[in-house]
Amino acid sequence: MENILFWLVPSASILALLLAWYFYHQMMKESEGTATMQTIASHVRKGAMSYLKQQYKIVGLVFLGLVAFFSILAYGFNLQNSWVPIAFLTGGFFSGLSGFLGMKTATYASARTANAARTSLNKGLRIAFRSGAVMGLVVVGLGLLDISFWYLILNAAIPDDILNPSAKLCIITTTMLTFGMGASTQALFARVGGGIYTKAADVGADLVGKVEAGIPEDDPRNPATIADNVGDNVGDVAGMGADLYESYCGSILATAALGAAAYIGTDDITLQFKAVIAPMLIAAVGILLSIIGIFSVRTKENAGIKELLRSLSFGTNLSSILIILATFGILWALQLDNWINISCAVIIGLLVGVIIGRSTEYYTSQSYKPTQKLSKSGETGPATVIISGIGLGMVSTTIPVLAVVAGIILSFWIAAGFDFTNVSMGLYGIGIAAVGMLSTLGITLATDAYGPIADNAGGNAEMSGLGEEVRKRTDALDSLGNTTAATGKGFAIGSAALTGLALLASYVEEIRIGLTRMGETVLTTSNGTIIDIHNAGFTDFMYYYDVTLMNPKVLSGMFIGAMMAFLFCGLTMNAVGRAAGHMVDEVRRQFREIKGILTGQQEPDYARCVAISTKGAQKEMVFPSLLAIIAPIFTGLVFGVPGVIGLLIGGLSSGFVLAIFMANAGGAWDNAKKYVEEGNFGGKGSEVHHAAVVGDTVGDPFKDTAGPSLNILIKLMSMVAIVMAGLTVAWSIF
Amino acid sequence: MENILFWLVPSASILALLLAWYFYHQMMKESEGTATMQTIASHVRKGAMSYLKQQYKIVGLVFLGLVAFFSILAYGFNLQNSWVPIAFLTGGFFSGLSGFLGMKTATYASARTANAARTSLNKGLRIAFRSGAVMGLVVVGLGLLDISFWYLILNAAIPDDILNPSAKLCIITTTMLTFGMGASTQALFARVGGGIYTKAADVGADLVGKVEAGIPEDDPRNPATIADNVGDNVGDVAGMGADLYESYCGSILATAALGAAAYIGTDDITLQFKAVIAPMLIAAVGILLSIIGIFSVRTKENAGIKELLRSLSFGTNLSSILIILATFGILWALQLDNWINISCAVIIGLLVGVIIGRSTEYYTSQSYKPTQKLSKSGETGPATVIISGIGLGMVSTTIPVLAVVAGIILSFWIAAGFDFTNVSMGLYGIGIAAVGMLSTLGITLATDAYGPIADNAGGNAEMSGLGEEVRKRTDALDSLGNTTAATGKGFAIGSAALTGLALLASYVEEIRIGLTRMGETVLTTSNGTIIDIHNAGFTDFMYYYDVTLMNPKVLSGMFIGAMMAFLFCGLTMNAVGRAAGHMVDEVRRQFREIKGILTGQQEPDYARCVAISTKGAQKEMVFPSLLAIIAPIFTGLVFGVPGVIGLLIGGLSSGFVLAIFMANAGGAWDNAKKYVEEGNFGGKGSEVHHAAVVGDTVGDPFKDTAGPSLNILIKLMSMVAIVMAGLTVAWSIF
Repeated sequence: MENILFWLVPSASILALLLAWYFYHQMMKESEGTATMQTIASHVRKGAMSYLKQQYKIVGLVFLGLVAFFSILAYGFNLQNSWVPIAFLTGGFFSGLSGFLGMKTATYASARTANAARTSLNKGLRIAFRSGAVMGLVVVGLGLLDISFWYLILNAAIPDDILNPSAKLCIITTTMLTFGMGASTQALFARVGGGIYTKAADVGADLVGKVEAGIPEDDPRNPATIADNVGDNVGDVAGMGADLYESYCGSILATAALGAAAYIGTDDITLQFKAVIAPMLIAAVGILLSIIGIFSVRTKENAGIKELLRSLSFGTNLSSILIILATFGILWALQLDNWINISCAVIIGLLVGVIIGRSTEYYTSQSYKPTQKLSKSGETGPATVIISGIGLGMVSTTIPVLAVVAGIILSFWIAAGFDFTNVSMGLYGIGIAAVGMLSTLGITLATDAYGPIADNAGGNAEMSGLGEEVRKRTDALDSLGNTTAATGKGFAIGSAALTGLALLASYVEEIRIGLTRMGETVLTTSNGTIIDIHNAGFTDFMYYYDVTLMNPKVLSGMFIGAMMAFLFCGLTMNAVGRAAGHMVDEVRRQFREIKGILTGQQEPDYARCVAISTKGAQKEMVFPSLLAIIAPIFTGLVFGVPGVIGLLIGGLSSGFVLAIFMANAGGAWDNAKKYVEEGNFGGKGSEVHHAAVVGDTVGDPFKDTAGPSLNILIKLMSMVAIVMAGLTVAWSIF
Repeated sequence: MENILFWLVPSASILALLLAWYFYHQMMKESEGTATMQTIASHVRKGAMSYLKQQYKIVGLVFLGLVAFFSILAYGFNLQNSWVPIAFLTGGFFSGLSGFLGMKTATYASARTANAARTSLNKGLRIAFRSGAVMGLVVVGLGLLDISFWYLILNAAIPDDILNPSAKLCIITTTMLTFGMGASTQALFARVGGGIYTKAADVGADLVGKVEAGIPEDDPRNPATIADNVGDNVGDVAGMGADLYESYCGSILATAALGAAAYIGTDDITLQFKAVIAPMLIAAVGILLSIIGIFSVRTKENAGIKELLRSLSFGTNLSSILIILATFGILWALQLDNWINISCAVIIGLLVGVIIGRSTEYYTSQSYKPTQKLSKSGETGPATVIISGIGLGMVSTTIPVLAVVAGIILSFWIAAGFDFTNVSMGLYGIGIAAVGMLSTLGITLATDAYGPIADNAGGNAEMSGLGEEVRKRTDALDSLGNTTAATGKGFAIGSAALTGLALLASYVEEIRIGLTRMGETVLTTSNGTIIDIHNAGFTDFMYYYDVTLMNPKVLSGMFIGAMMAFLFCGLTMNAVGRAAGHMVDEVRRQFREIKGILTGQQEPDYARCVAISTKGAQKEMVFPSLLAIIAPIFTGLVFGVPGVIGLLIGGLSSGFVLAIFMANAGGAWDNAKKYVEEGNFGGKGSEVHHAAVVGDTVGDPFKDTAGPSLNILIKLMSMVAIVMAGLTVAWSIF
């Protein structure tokens, strides 16, 4: 039964890819509009593609370096599994491919969306949403395909008769995790580079265009406006695609590894196999239900903005409700021994995601008090807007943290059969909750990727001078996209927290393998107990390495982890500041030197702004990204295993809270400005509006560069720790 | 020998208090200057005193409630030591008294400093510094007096023949810790209330006065200017005095408790006694050397600003060097068995303090690149100033965290005789490092409290129209104060981190006592080992409660701890935003309604602004402060001991990094503005200056409200956990 069920996984992934292909071709059949629209779209497309090409060159170099390093460790010192270098490469390749395909679709879709909006709102929504769905489906499709592929290869390649019968699946699943590190590394560069690119352009365009020259957003007279639109694609589409590809695979792989670990030492290999494929099956079913959800998104002609939102929400809600029912069904069919408990963990994960999303909406939408009050604080100038926004962001961390805490405790407790000492099953439950949260990623990512497409469609409409009516429609589509993007961000952060915990647990599994490779057969804990290494549980490893909170190495690691989150954020903020500064100088220079720009008689030099953003992003992304890779290795070499675990937990807890703070503060500033622009507190052009624009500008790197990059930092540090476990186990200073 | 040495402790404390009394009377003999100067000084004094009176009323109510609660726990349910309620009260009383005396001195000293500056810079420095020394000496004097007093009382009151011979000192020292909670609670209210007061007034005065009306700082036409000067006293003097009283006592008491614990189960009671009094002796010697340092601060007539700084630094450096030598001497005289190792821990603590101070100076002084670059970012407007400042602050956490990590590892390792399994000695080493860092508090606090006195002197000179020359001198004194204040802040944060760790270890000691009170005699750890509770070490308790990083209760606690730091910061930021908003409205109203203010023909209504700040601070301080008290109790009731330890560590690591970020970003914005005002990038009144003023205004609550309050949050949560350990041990949901 379970062997037949497994084939659901590759089948669902192929179905997703086929559908993505179909949606892509449907979209390409549409007209791209007038000649001006086509020219602008091709400017943006070229800028985006040339950026991505540059980026892949640099990332390629980093990958080469890392693969060489891993090869030395694996083949030279036997400190690593020999599959690591190649698994690492495929993860990076597929993650990059997801971002590339999503972005390619988006850059073709935006002019078509704008053109469709000339006919009707509904048609615009349909094109934008289905193009967003291409990315959603590509990410989940490629993710599950990669997972199935590696599972089948490793299952065939690794002999059955190693060590003890249950060890094989442990080795397979932990090896597969290393392709997660490839995906993480790719995702980090994409998020950081894309985030710096998009915000340097956006901040530069806003500061000079809106604030100094007083021209509207996306005005063709603004030299940075093409770069701004390119930025939406490279940051919000390609970056997000790579990011969520990584979360998705990371949560499934970590949970599979925990499933294998939960049944280590068992004789019932079938039970272990079921635990390993359960997360993959949930994901596969999630794909099918996402597809149903995607097809259910349709709205009446002449629908208002509320109806649009309702029809998008209907799709995601439908998928979520169906996945709950389907999970009970599939886990029952799998005959997993504790299928009811595990199904409950899926529900918990989904609920945590919903609560975080709702909390994000409450704190960042101008329909609610917090953001409205933030707008009001503009009456006393930009300084109070900043103070209040930071206060709002910090306070807004409460509900998401409590939701995640409840999710951790309940999914652990229920999956463990209400017994806190059943650690391996409990941790498996946390992993399953993460998988549950991400199971409907196909559709949530579709609504997410829809945002920048609609944004670019608006940009195209404005620059092509399509007239008030069309611009109004694209504005409605854009505004809808802002709401879904904010919810999606909360979702990405929440899943990162749970996935981070699951990865941490997988790290401990890697320790077991690392020790075994070094010839250890038993563990002697610091209070003298001796345990066979193959039967040792998570807690035994904690005792062996004394990973308690009175160990100074653990404490040191935790401080470094907390610091890493801040340092990383600070570096990306500074990078945006510097790159935006160059953009401002350039835009000012063009306004000054090319006299005809502001009167509309002369075209600004868009290409130069694109080049500045590209160069800035490429230059600035390398150091913070390498730091994230080096920190766990360094901590491991100095403080050993306890230090690394401390680092991961410190980074996870601080990084999670910091990420929510930054995302929500940024979102609230953005919408507080919109609320003023809707005519409140003096409306556009008032002093309050100027103050709100300062808040919005500060919020840009908060919500689109530093905040989202933190999600990946959390997971990448865990992934690096996992891949480098062999080295850490073998040697450390203290 | 050790019994004779003990008397050094009360003797040093009395000497400190006598000298404080002497300095106070010397200062009072000086003239307070012209009639206008006296009137202004009396306005500020009255405002400050009436604020403090209000504050003590509210804090008194909170104390009454808590004492009633503790009494019920102690006498009704036997969940607590019966000394707790009264010890708690004295801690609160002395902490409040330190703040009160320091502030009283400061409010008398500022006009006298301004008046002395009419004669010479040197005379002004002398009065301001010696008045600052009053607070330094009062804090250390009252602290050690309270400690000696309680030690003698408890030693007499608790019978010798309890349980086992070494248990008595454990009970004495852990009971004394509860007076630390009283001090913490008082300090939190003082810091939060004072911080909100001072920044509401400052932000309000700056926003309308400087930015909108374009009048200089401390201009008598600004209605908020008296409130601003009152704020310096209630926030930076009274708040800081209570804060550092608490750090000082907390580090000594926690270390004494760790010393007692390190020798639990020993037959050599003398050795245990030595370990208990060692931190007190270091502190006592530190007082004597601080006094020497204070007297060494003198400068030539007509000294420049550099020479002034050098003479202040000479005093602190002299004390620091002497304390290293003296520590070796005193610990050798005490015949502590590992006196060399323990002396090294003192040196490590001092070094960590120096490194953090230097790093703060580098990141926040306009003499260095980071702040200069921050000023330059003002060329592209306020938004880039904020982005760059946040980036700077986040990056600036790196060196302090690495310094603290090195301090933790090295002081643990060396004190433990280079054996990481010797946990109790290692933790004692961390405590000793904290004591070392704070040992010269008498003089460091003097240079710290000097700052607001000089600031107020400048305000007085400006408002009394004392002329350019005098104002220049008071500006020089003020600028010197900014540098010392920034260093002092780094110092306060660093000591909070180490003290927090020492308190955490003391919490585990309280667990032992709580379990014993409940009749437990042995510990059974989760892997089956059974240990006599009286001989159990720290690690045994970790195993008993499974305080490992794979326990979901620990992880949940850590997430909540990290969230608490952000929530608390956010609440205080919002409080300042709201209170400042009211102040802005009031100042605008006065400018609008009282026509003669700006022309100088009519006096503004200062009292109304004072009342607004007072009311705002009182109203806003209660919720965040109570939250800090409730969080550990609540976490304990839900998640038990593992959850509480997680909470404390999560709060400590995130809170420490967050505090440094906020303090340094705030300090850098302040000085970036000063750098512009010195004539760079266009100087006063330029666009860059306007942008820099926005940064400075945002930075005010960062550095003077939220940041410093976090130090106390970290320690108060530990203190509450310690005092409530009996309840947590007895019952929890999970």
